[in-house]
Amino acid sequence: MKAIVIRGDELPLEERPDPVPGSSEVVVGVEYAGINPADLAQRAGRYPAPPGSPQDVPGLEVAGSVVACGDQVRDWQVADRVFGLVGGGGLADRVAVHERHVVAVPERLDEQEAAAVPEAFVTAHDAIVGQAGLGAGDVLLVNGASGGVGTAAVQLGVLAGARVFANVRSQNAVARLAEYGAEAVGPGEAFERVRAAGGADVVLELVGAPNLAGDLEALAVKGRVVIVGTGAGDEAALSFRALMGRRARIFGTVLRARPLEEKAAAVQAFGHDVVPFLAEGRAHGIVDRVFPAEQAAEAFAYMARPGKFGKVLLAF
Amino acid sequence: MKAIVIRGDELPLEERPDPVPGSSEVVVGVEYAGINPADLAQRAGRYPAPPGSPQDVPGLEVAGSVVACGDQVRDWQVADRVFGLVGGGGLADRVAVHERHVVAVPERLDEQEAAAVPEAFVTAHDAIVGQAGLGAGDVLLVNGASGGVGTAAVQLGVLAGARVFANVRSQNAVARLAEYGAEAVGPGEAFERVRAAGGADVVLELVGAPNLAGDLEALAVKGRVVIVGTGAGDEAALSFRALMGRRARIFGTVLRARPLEEKAAAVQAFGHDVVPFLAEGRAHGIVDRVFPAEQAAEAFAYMARPGKFGKVLLAF
Repeated sequence: MKAIVIRGDELPLEERPDPVPGSSEVVVGVEYAGINPADLAQRAGRYPAPPGSPQDVPGLEVAGSVVACGDQVRDWQVADRVFGLVGGGGLADRVAVHERHVVAVPERLDEQEAAAVPEAFVTAHDAIVGQAGLGAGDVLLVNGASGGVGTAAVQLGVLAGARVFANVRSQNAVARLAEYGAEAVGPGEAFERVRAAGGADVVLELVGAPNLAGDLEALAVKGRVVIVGTGAGDEAALSFRALMGRRARIFGTVLRARPLEEKAAAVQAFGHDVVPFLAEGRAHGIVDRVFPAEQAAEAFAYMARPGKFGKVLLAF
Repeated sequence: MKAIVIRGDELPLEERPDPVPGSSEVVVGVEYAGINPADLAQRAGRYPAPPGSPQDVPGLEVAGSVVACGDQVRDWQVADRVFGLVGGGGLADRVAVHERHVVAVPERLDEQEAAAVPEAFVTAHDAIVGQAGLGAGDVLLVNGASGGVGTAAVQLGVLAGARVFANVRSQNAVARLAEYGAEAVGPGEAFERVRAAGGADVVLELVGAPNLAGDLEALAVKGRVVIVGTGAGDEAALSFRALMGRRARIFGTVLRARPLEEKAAAVQAFGHDVVPFLAEGRAHGIVDRVFPAEQAAEAFAYMARPGKFGKVLLAF
């Protein structure tokens, strides 16, 4: 197989032995693979892969067609189209994954759109619905709404019946998020706009620590802040009184380090709650740009810059 | 009636008109009333009473015998012994309270012990069981375990089947908390001892902001920190990575400001889950010291000093 390998600052595409499926695993043949902020953190040495995952091949998600099945696999056969999560090694044209960590790709999605979906939608769904319990009538604020997780969260919030405020910097993103049903707001006005709407029941924090004080000020009573991203900073002053006055809650979450059964539960919940919307064309994987796998370093550099809308993919 | 009135730094016992019960209220005749840290904060001007409660009479709880009933009261009649929560005005010998904000006092408890129970046990039960979901096999760390809420939380944690670490300063408290089934630890060793036990599933924070970093370090995966007290400080640096690495949650909570139905729910849950243990003598209201109501200022000054074990009461 061919895989992107971390070699210092280089990200060469190298030949590796094809993966052999474990007894409950399938091997997926991959045309397109999504890049995530965690891949950049892993290359920078700040986010090592969990035990059991390759340390030198980044990539947290998989989409493609089954090319081999372990002898205990029940749910899949060769040629089935699947997408889901891996602990590492996703940036390759062959990826081994536990059969409960993938679900079926709806026919409506082509290979590119399918590749833009799993990490973004599983993360967003698990955070705002699974953990924070977003529902109809709620107000959702998404800070950093233009990336993969952000665009997924905006769509899921609208589909859940929430009023969604999408906090983004670029004017291009403002127009596109409005098409998805969100009220797009700039960073300078987001907290005030949300307060004027009665306060946020859920804040999805994809930017980082500098937003924490504003997030708390923007919360409704019993609101929840779910922290997924720390790109803009890792440490913030927390006012106990601000937290207590709203009876607010702050959740820290990551998907990658979860044990097998919890990761399977998150993927299966996505399969149950979200995939039907994708199948009907009411939610969409959003592709910002596709790079050839040979240009992985350029793709990572592009990922690190602002102004994207949706996912950055590698083509194998 | 006689009530403690906030007049600057003075807390005189004054004559006031007897309360008239609203249609769903009872008036309770009080012999002993518990003082809470919130009463000190209210006197200091930092914690105003919620709308509908007297602004100048502190006191958040009530225990005694019903002396009058509103015309819609269903649950109680005159002479019933009850205890529960009020939004203010508790430091008086007659207190009006909604009938769903009190439950029956078990026969086993005398008037003093009954007065030591409601705010402490409702707060502790709501925080560690109702919100944080403490159960058998869990590890509970109580920071500031020697006060009213702390001693209640230690007892409830042991009764719930948790392993309980009680973080206290005084050697006297160490010995007494061990009698209640906790592993008493000093502030210098608490976090390390809890980590060595596998980490805390729940931390009840009754001291304040200086503990936050240690609380997070002491948490198990998916652990919850419930913040009830801020006496030692209100603002702390929060590491997003520490929170996310454990998939941890921080809850801010207060009882006083809750709407009628939520306060009733907390009191009724206490009636269902906790009162039977009090009735059987398996949990105890703990009285540190009783002051005559005429010495309320001395009692408040005593409350502000360290070294107590259990509740400080006023006798009317």
